[in-house]
Amino acid sequence: MPLKSRHLIGLEGISKEELEIIFKTADIFKEVLQRPIKKVPTLTGKTVVNLFFEPSTRTRISFELAERRLSADTINFSSSGSSISKGETLKDTVRNIEAMKIDLVVVRHSSPGTPLFLSKILNASIINAGDGAHEHPTQALLDMYSLREKFGRLEKLKVLIVGDISHSRVALSNIYGMTSMGINVSLCGPATLMPRELDKLGVKIYYNLDEAIKDKDVILVLRIQLERQKKGLFPSIREYRNCFGITKERLQKLKDDVVIMHPGPINRGVELDGDVADCKNSIILEQVENGVAIRMAVLYLLSGVESSLTI
Amino acid sequence: MPLKSRHLIGLEGISKEELEIIFKTADIFKEVLQRPIKKVPTLTGKTVVNLFFEPSTRTRISFELAERRLSADTINFSSSGSSISKGETLKDTVRNIEAMKIDLVVVRHSSPGTPLFLSKILNASIINAGDGAHEHPTQALLDMYSLREKFGRLEKLKVLIVGDISHSRVALSNIYGMTSMGINVSLCGPATLMPRELDKLGVKIYYNLDEAIKDKDVILVLRIQLERQKKGLFPSIREYRNCFGITKERLQKLKDDVVIMHPGPINRGVELDGDVADCKNSIILEQVENGVAIRMAVLYLLSGVESSLTI
Amino acid sequence: MPLKSRHLIGLEGISKEELEIIFKTADIFKEVLQRPIKKVPTLTGKTVVNLFFEPSTRTRISFELAERRLSADTINFSSSGSSISKGETLKDTVRNIEAMKIDLVVVRHSSPGTPLFLSKILNASIINAGDGAHEHPTQALLDMYSLREKFGRLEKLKVLIVGDISHSRVALSNIYGMTSMGINVSLCGPATLMPRELDKLGVKIYYNLDEAIKDKDVILVLRIQLERQKKGLFPSIREYRNCFGITKERLQKLKDDVVIMHPGPINRGVELDGDVADCKNSIILEQVENGVAIRMAVLYLLSGVESSLTI
Repeated sequence: MPLKSRHLIGLEGISKEELEIIFKTADIFKEVLQRPIKKVPTLTGKTVVNLFFEPSTRTRISFELAERRLSADTINFSSSGSSISKGETLKDTVRNIEAMKIDLVVVRHSSPGTPLFLSKILNASIINAGDGAHEHPTQALLDMYSLREKFGRLEKLKVLIVGDISHSRVALSNIYGMTSMGINVSLCGPATLMPRELDKLGVKIYYNLDEAIKDKDVILVLRIQLERQKKGLFPSIREYRNCFGITKERLQKLKDDVVIMHPGPINRGVELDGDVADCKNSIILEQVENGVAIRMAVLYLLSGVESSLTI
Repeated sequence: MPLKSRHLIGLEGISKEELEIIFKTADIFKEVLQRPIKKVPTLTGKTVVNLFFEPSTRTRISFELAERRLSADTINFSSSGSSISKGETLKDTVRNIEAMKIDLVVVRHSSPGTPLFLSKILNASIINAGDGAHEHPTQALLDMYSLREKFGRLEKLKVLIVGDISHSRVALSNIYGMTSMGINVSLCGPATLMPRELDKLGVKIYYNLDEAIKDKDVILVLRIQLERQKKGLFPSIREYRNCFGITKERLQKLKDDVVIMHPGPINRGVELDGDVADCKNSIILEQVENGVAIRMAVLYLLSGVESSLTI
Repeated sequence: MPLKSRHLIGLEGISKEELEIIFKTADIFKEVLQRPIKKVPTLTGKTVVNLFFEPSTRTRISFELAERRLSADTINFSSSGSSISKGETLKDTVRNIEAMKIDLVVVRHSSPGTPLFLSKILNASIINAGDGAHEHPTQALLDMYSLREKFGRLEKLKVLIVGDISHSRVALSNIYGMTSMGINVSLCGPATLMPRELDKLGVKIYYNLDEAIKDKDVILVLRIQLERQKKGLFPSIREYRNCFGITKERLQKLKDDVVIMHPGPINRGVELDGDVADCKNSIILEQVENGVAIRMAVLYLLSGVESSLTI
């Protein structure tokens, strides 16, 4: 196994070497995705279960496409219409699924720690597709992979992550992965949405966006959960946009070749103006495209398929 | 590409030549469906997304079967449990899905114009699986294909479409396609459910069913939406059946070899009596069977796969 | 066809010879499931529709895995989001699906008799995946198969089925199948949940669990439907557990090598203590694993594929 763990729970503690193995593997699959026949037999006869306990469009479809293009057999499971509604424990549900000889489990759950818990009780390899406010490692991998493609390197890039850092699994996975890759990571957001003790992670904190953006190569804009507003964590959408939105006006103050990223789905006109999302600096659709290649790489690397890739 | 457009938005403006290409291609796939192994590798490595924003059984399953029997990879997407519920725009959702390298999108939506809109913003080929009261082109194609199979020709057939013409995408697509094929199309239904300006389409309008049915070769019965009654568009189900239902009694007044069609699902005992639906004149199940062959033909013709069919 | 019927509606009247054909076929597929590539081309080009009108996790996934590992094309259909909600009859829905050239239909429905009804109107082969309180034949097959694997034989085994016998399709299928195989079947449960006229089936009835368990080789614990309690069929969960639960304490009174089974999902601490479910005597996960092999065997045997298995 070229990676240290046979699971992908998060990017905390992952080494630069491991990240580079994932990126180089994704390069191979990205080339496959440019072909007229975007399919390889790599995971024929392997079974992947997608366990989505939270609604998802792009992440679920991205994983499902990655699995099918690797020729794996895919089983979809969502919490509605399932034994979970019969009061069965998560542990029983998942152990039963595993008894059917599953090779890989992709899991999204609102409770942080669910993928780690599953990795301790299952023989299958676990891939975290987002667990509460903890980690979303494949999103961070595709973010870094898209930057590596854009800039040809990652080291010393100046990246600013803007938004609700406290509740963002995307931010946390990116902080772990990007600092491992030698990226210079800064954060900006309302003080009410900024976690404490972040200084230990080696990142710089800003509370004023106009100051924060000045010299940055990349702005990674996080989705604001509009329901946070009800909890009083920020005063109004208008105020949020004024202070922390990447608006058309603010785009003028950024470097000419700045790169704009967003994990989607976008609240257009809130954290990101539609004009900025669609401008030449945005690589948002490239992120989505690269997501499939990154997930193919992760699925392949964790599958235990030992033959080298000749595809 | 043997068809003028790389999308199938509707049958408005489609030529007789194009319709015949579709029918001849469907002939090939119909033969495949008679084999013990009903599967060809034609679309291996192509990805089709089924976007169903309205509930559907037969159309969705028919497309899905057509896709699998062409060996395409199929992704199903329904509006529940998706990012749509997170407030994302349709445009963002679909552009994101497309970024994952989709070849074909099959879309059903309650808003007329959705498939046309998508065809303007996507690189993938769009197939309209029903958009509001606008068009449902594959249904009309399978209706005509079933008649061609039954009669050996389409020209000069006398077809009567009965029911709620105003709200029927099935009727509109059939009017466009059938008039292109030289079919003599008449319509019959309550005046409240008959659109104006239909005379421009070259069809004859009846308001009295017993007069309308006399010399017809084919009666295409539309499903009545029972919820229209609440809006006062027809007085009662009993009254509707009396005036516009193809009842057991009315069947006696029809030509002996008349052909009865219905796009399903049937309200038995309302627009169509159960005895008529199941009688020897009905080709309702043939319509369903031919739907898979027609959809295989459309998927193949729009896929851009250039090799000739040797299957 | 090596089985008498081309449907699997239930185990009532099935012969020992037929059961042994199924078990021997399952042996072959069980071996396939131990391979790195758990897939055979046996049902390539065959189409299976999974019609689940009741929620299900493990049975649906088990069938779906069995189908994919046989390389069949699989279509999933659940009652929500379907034409059923448009008021179409079950008969119309299923006949329409069949017109699309389906080979096998797997059906779960809350109404007993639904699979039998479908077998009379369809050309496809029907597999009952549970119909109300009637039968659940593949569950009983996998139960017997798991015992055959554990003991090397079935004849003269002493099996006690404990719980809500009246409402259990698992119990009824096992009573039919196990008595055919020469197993000595006993039942135990509250008198309110014990059907009358069971003596005709050649089984022994107990109402006292501690008396019943003494000399048994196997305890098959049924899931208690907690909603039965509301109907006054048993006084309280605590009382049920005291009288009919296989508790940690009761395990001590059982034979050392007793085998504990449960069809899942378990109400831990009600009909079965968690410690017993997870102890060395439990073969609950083996049951789940064997379910896929049994279902592959049934699908293959009913598919009409005539070539012998060389896989």
